Amino acid sequence: MGAPQISVAGAGGRVTPELARLATEVGRLLAERGAVLVCGGLGGVMEAAARGAREAGGATIGILPGESPAAASPWIQHVVATGSGHARNLAVAASGDALIAVGGGWGTASEIALARKLCRPVVVLGGGPAVEGEGIERVESAAEAVELALARAAASHPA
Amino acid sequence: MGAPQISVAGAGGRVTPELARLATEVGRLLAERGAVLVCGGLGGVMEAAARGAREAGGATIGILPGESPAAASPWIQHVVATGSGHARNLAVAASGDALIAVGGGWGTASEIALARKLCRPVVVLGGGPAVEGEGIERVESAAEAVELALARAAASHPA
Amino acid sequence: MGAPQISVAGAGGRVTPELARLATEVGRLLAERGAVLVCGGLGGVMEAAARGAREAGGATIGILPGESPAAASPWIQHVVATGSGHARNLAVAASGDALIAVGGGWGTASEIALARKLCRPVVVLGGGPAVEGEGIERVESAAEAVELALARAAASHPA
Amino acid sequence: MGAPQISVAGAGGRVTPELARLATEVGRLLAERGAVLVCGGLGGVMEAAARGAREAGGATIGILPGESPAAASPWIQHVVATGSGHARNLAVAASGDALIAVGGGWGTASEIALARKLCRPVVVLGGGPAVEGEGIERVESAAEAVELALARAAASHPA
Repeated sequence: MGAPQISVAGAGGRVTPELARLATEVGRLLAERGAVLVCGGLGGVMEAAARGAREAGGATIGILPGESPAAASPWIQHVVATGSGHARNLAVAASGDALIAVGGGWGTASEIALARKLCRPVVVLGGGPAVEGEGIERVESAAEAVELALARAAASHPA
Repeated sequence: MGAPQISVAGAGGRVTPELARLATEVGRLLAERGAVLVCGGLGGVMEAAARGAREAGGATIGILPGESPAAASPWIQHVVATGSGHARNLAVAASGDALIAVGGGWGTASEIALARKLCRPVVVLGGGPAVEGEGIERVESAAEAVELALARAAASHPA
Repeated sequence: MGAPQISVAGAGGRVTPELARLATEVGRLLAERGAVLVCGGLGGVMEAAARGAREAGGATIGILPGESPAAASPWIQHVVATGSGHARNLAVAASGDALIAVGGGWGTASEIALARKLCRPVVVLGGGPAVEGEGIERVESAAEAVELALARAAASHPA
Repeated sequence: MGAPQISVAGAGGRVTPELARLATEVGRLLAERGAVLVCGGLGGVMEAAARGAREAGGATIGILPGESPAAASPWIQHVVATGSGHARNLAVAASGDALIAVGGGWGTASEIALARKLCRPVVVLGGGPAVEGEGIERVESAAEAVELALARAAASHPA
């Protein structure tokens, strides 16, 4: 496999400029570190993060809830259309060596919980849903989020 | 459909006697109120709740992660084997008019988050995972949990 | 578990009067034999079969593709809303000790294939999709379909 | 999105040298035509096709049934671990603009049926499961399979 895959979760609709900025920076930094960005493939935080990654020359994978690959944002390089609705949140959580949540609501909360169920390390940035527990760490900046996610991913070797 | 369906979530492995007692009482009270109990179909809290419901003459539905109906606990009356792993947590959350969590870990946390994503009311009993937010209410007794879940379910009419 | 569960698959939209008659008779005969009918929960053949079962006093389980239990036909007694789209076809196939297809198109074809993947016996009635192979048997009447499905289910003991 | 994505389906276990040769050639030709290869990510035909694509410099996406990305064959460049078992067959079918089946059993048959349910064109090579119907075309060589799949994909613009 080689390059680590890091999942980025967050709201799919309108997001604040601050969350969009954080997500774009997370995407950019992941690309600069050679990581592949995995996300839910839609708008909002997912699109901002994918844009950041692509603009920095990184690879992006979008895992969509619907049956049509055409629903992916233009910044998604490789599209998986699951046709499984919110059940695709499990695939987003499982496909990353770590998960970074940038803000987010109940969908993001479910991805955090599923990631932890699968023992994936989770880093939360920009507030995020009120889910707490072992393996969930909160940080203040995109740079901290990316460094911590990559470090935790390297240490955990999810099998 | 008629009878309300209430989902009960909680740990599937060994549980404390206190959680098992609470879950059994939740199952019994749901049955006495004419509700159908929905759960993940396995052991622990799921089995205790299903046992309480069946012993009181109620109906139970178990939604299993695996492909084999034979994995259901003996207290499951109607078995759905999804073959979809933890993605079945979405079905557990969606199939109830409300969700009652009795303790639980990350799997339960994901069911709470998915239930809220689908606007299902959630009642948490016996501690439960550290997930907070609008629509999640904590109670102290099985009787409170069942009354509140049925009241919230009646008020929300999930469509 | 006790009672066998038999899955019935077929088109969900408009169906011919002949297919509806066959499906209703399959449902009625399954109920008379004490089997629980499992289906996709929607209209067409699924609804006709569930109606036949319920009118004869049998139990029915509907496994819906969507997130809302309210989408189930009125003849569904126990509703599972998977929220997983066509991925729920796997649950329909896995939850029966055998599968009876009554006519049907590509969705039914996928349920037949998934049932065989899981070693469930398949009986096809009323034409049905052009899927052939070991473990798929074609019959001419609802009575033959029900007898053969119950016999094959009893012989295969899916685990 | 740009590059077309073509799904390749087939048996995951031991396959005949002839099927492996056909799958490798399909992968190579897809890469030479600039298409991204999508598959189930495991061994057998999936691995042979992914190998052909990667050795020719093409991109590959593997959509795994399990929760661990580490289960992907070494020829998978981008891994999606769905954790959803055979329900991931829907994602394999949905994520391609067309599906090429190279031999295969019941799993492949389910992917063909699901692809047709979603109106994706299907090309069958090397025998393949006994599933017939509109939109399924059989060819004799890897070159024919790739040309036909790309032509049908371009003509169908799945949305």
